[in-house]
Amino acid sequence: MFEFRIKKLRELLVKENLDAILISSVSNISYLTGYTNFSKEEREAYLIITKKEQFIVTDGRYSGVIKRQVPHFKLLELAGENSLKNIFAKFARLKVLGIEEDEITVSEHKMLKKHFKKMKHLDIKSHRSVKTDDEIKKIEQAAKLGDKAFKYILGKIRSGISEKDLAYELESFIKKNKADLSFPPIIAFGRNSAIPHHQTGETKLDKKEGQFILLDFGVKLENYCSDMTRTIFFGSPTDKQKKIYKVILEAQQKAVDYINSAIKSGKKVKADEVDRAARDYITSKGYPVIPHSLGHGVGLQVHEHPSLSSKSRDILKTGMVFSIEPGIYLPNFGLPRFAGEAGGVRIEDLFVPGKAGLKQLTNSPKSIISI
Amino acid sequence: MFEFRIKKLRELLVKENLDAILISSVSNISYLTGYTNFSKEEREAYLIITKKEQFIVTDGRYSGVIKRQVPHFKLLELAGENSLKNIFAKFARLKVLGIEEDEITVSEHKMLKKHFKKMKHLDIKSHRSVKTDDEIKKIEQAAKLGDKAFKYILGKIRSGISEKDLAYELESFIKKNKADLSFPPIIAFGRNSAIPHHQTGETKLDKKEGQFILLDFGVKLENYCSDMTRTIFFGSPTDKQKKIYKVILEAQQKAVDYINSAIKSGKKVKADEVDRAARDYITSKGYPVIPHSLGHGVGLQVHEHPSLSSKSRDILKTGMVFSIEPGIYLPNFGLPRFAGEAGGVRIEDLFVPGKAGLKQLTNSPKSIISI
Repeated sequence: MFEFRIKKLRELLVKENLDAILISSVSNISYLTGYTNFSKEEREAYLIITKKEQFIVTDGRYSGVIKRQVPHFKLLELAGENSLKNIFAKFARLKVLGIEEDEITVSEHKMLKKHFKKMKHLDIKSHRSVKTDDEIKKIEQAAKLGDKAFKYILGKIRSGISEKDLAYELESFIKKNKADLSFPPIIAFGRNSAIPHHQTGETKLDKKEGQFILLDFGVKLENYCSDMTRTIFFGSPTDKQKKIYKVILEAQQKAVDYINSAIKSGKKVKADEVDRAARDYITSKGYPVIPHSLGHGVGLQVHEHPSLSSKSRDILKTGMVFSIEPGIYLPNFGLPRFAGEAGGVRIEDLFVPGKAGLKQLTNSPKSIISI
Repeated sequence: MFEFRIKKLRELLVKENLDAILISSVSNISYLTGYTNFSKEEREAYLIITKKEQFIVTDGRYSGVIKRQVPHFKLLELAGENSLKNIFAKFARLKVLGIEEDEITVSEHKMLKKHFKKMKHLDIKSHRSVKTDDEIKKIEQAAKLGDKAFKYILGKIRSGISEKDLAYELESFIKKNKADLSFPPIIAFGRNSAIPHHQTGETKLDKKEGQFILLDFGVKLENYCSDMTRTIFFGSPTDKQKKIYKVILEAQQKAVDYINSAIKSGKKVKADEVDRAARDYITSKGYPVIPHSLGHGVGLQVHEHPSLSSKSRDILKTGMVFSIEPGIYLPNFGLPRFAGEAGGVRIEDLFVPGKAGLKQLTNSPKSIISI
């Protein structure tokens, strides 16, 4: 598996006339080594891949475990005289180095410049976007556990519970099932659901009729992420709330239909057009435009290539796993004609295009749920 | 509070002859706005601080909440024609822009170059390192909850429990107390304790005599982090294990003594010399050199300025909060003379220098604990 991934990178190295590739992002290091414990907030490792060799640079906090778990990379341990500067100096013979410019900081770049004459941006985001069957299976397992977790927490929703309490129930369920969260869950009650990325807080559910409950969460299982959103109601939804819900459900279906018909007719599936299919449907119904992209790839990271947005130039291919997540958000200010409906609805599922059409990996019910 | 922090930044702006400062790191955005929910993995906001005005750039996922919670910044919402490019274009009159080079990526820098003629690195890490009394109080509260959590999980340690199970007990306790983890806990049993940054896993405790249990965790309370490490024993420790433990405890004390005597004599407390006091003591006893720095600042981030390492040029000042965490790690390979003691010991506490000397914020027992 790792051999294949490194081989693909070497093909790019040859194609782009590089002497070596420097990998710095934690997700790409995980992808190429299988080791997933480096910090995402600090630089703790680099990979250097030349035409014939591959190296991992890290320090004594990790060198023992890397020796055992990542034998397919030669370890260059940072220690004493073996500073980063001195390690890079050993590679100074390399003329052109490929780097992840989306990821390398300006300070790092200045340091690298001292050792490497020429650096070139390498876009390898797309390397991970088409998943193998094994990867899809892992994401599907994560999605299935997400569905179970959704069913489980429906039973925990009651008057007086806070967003944080519900998030805790969700997290506990997922962790008891030997998995992790792919990100801190977004649990939004009532008007908080009008904030697309609401910070789960102390708001409590009360008995007011038809309160929105937006639940956006994901499971991480064997390092692969799932992502899903459901919006349900505490109390009976009003007709207006039902209408918003219906429009969102239909908007998601518009995107699905667009992809399926493109696959059938053998056309390229352009991500921006998929985004437009859902986006335009929502505005055609008189609702505000989605304030975020329609969807994103999912894999080792919960947000990765491709992007389903109006500016995307990505093509959706067989084996890519991505979300489709339209939303309508009506804050209780600015839009007097929606004054009754402070709140929002988002529905998000994961999909993977196959030869026969789009397969949905998350399978929680999408009919209106009222508790 | 925010006014004071922004004022300090404007003083730097004048001193460095800048026209504006671009703040991009999530922790500095939190520090200056009070809003803490932006993603650390994706760029979702910028602050632009000119001589007279201050702006926050973000998109529709956050604009509603920012309007309400961050009224002291003018919101520039990314939407449609109001792209990042067009927003930056409006600031093109600015001649010199201060940026966080440690944080801005090469790709972003290329984009910024199109709008700003001159950019200059701005080191504002040290702005957050001296804490106010209120900030110290918050960290102390987090540290106290950490001490309670340590006491709590001592009662959960039993034969058969796995590292992950114990981490789960720890996390549950902290979350039930309305706090969060400052990072995924490092729980290492037996030989795993020889890996300084072990990835908490499925290893189970067994009845073998004198097994090391290393617990490294932190609490986040009101956005401020604590950090602590204790190493205890499952079963009675051997004499050799006790000796390692004692050396680590003494090494920590060496660092504390060094700081206290420097404070008393009115000398500058140099971070590299503090590091050396503990480091040299460990090697003088025949043990391997600490494969990480002796300590780090703690605050909104669990790792921040200052750094207590051999290469640091930081000066430890009154009001800085930092860890002192010496460690000895003896993997079961490579060092035949330690063949009996595969495992490691680290002890970590948080300290803050005051006029009367060093105050310790974490207060869990450091005598040998055997369960």
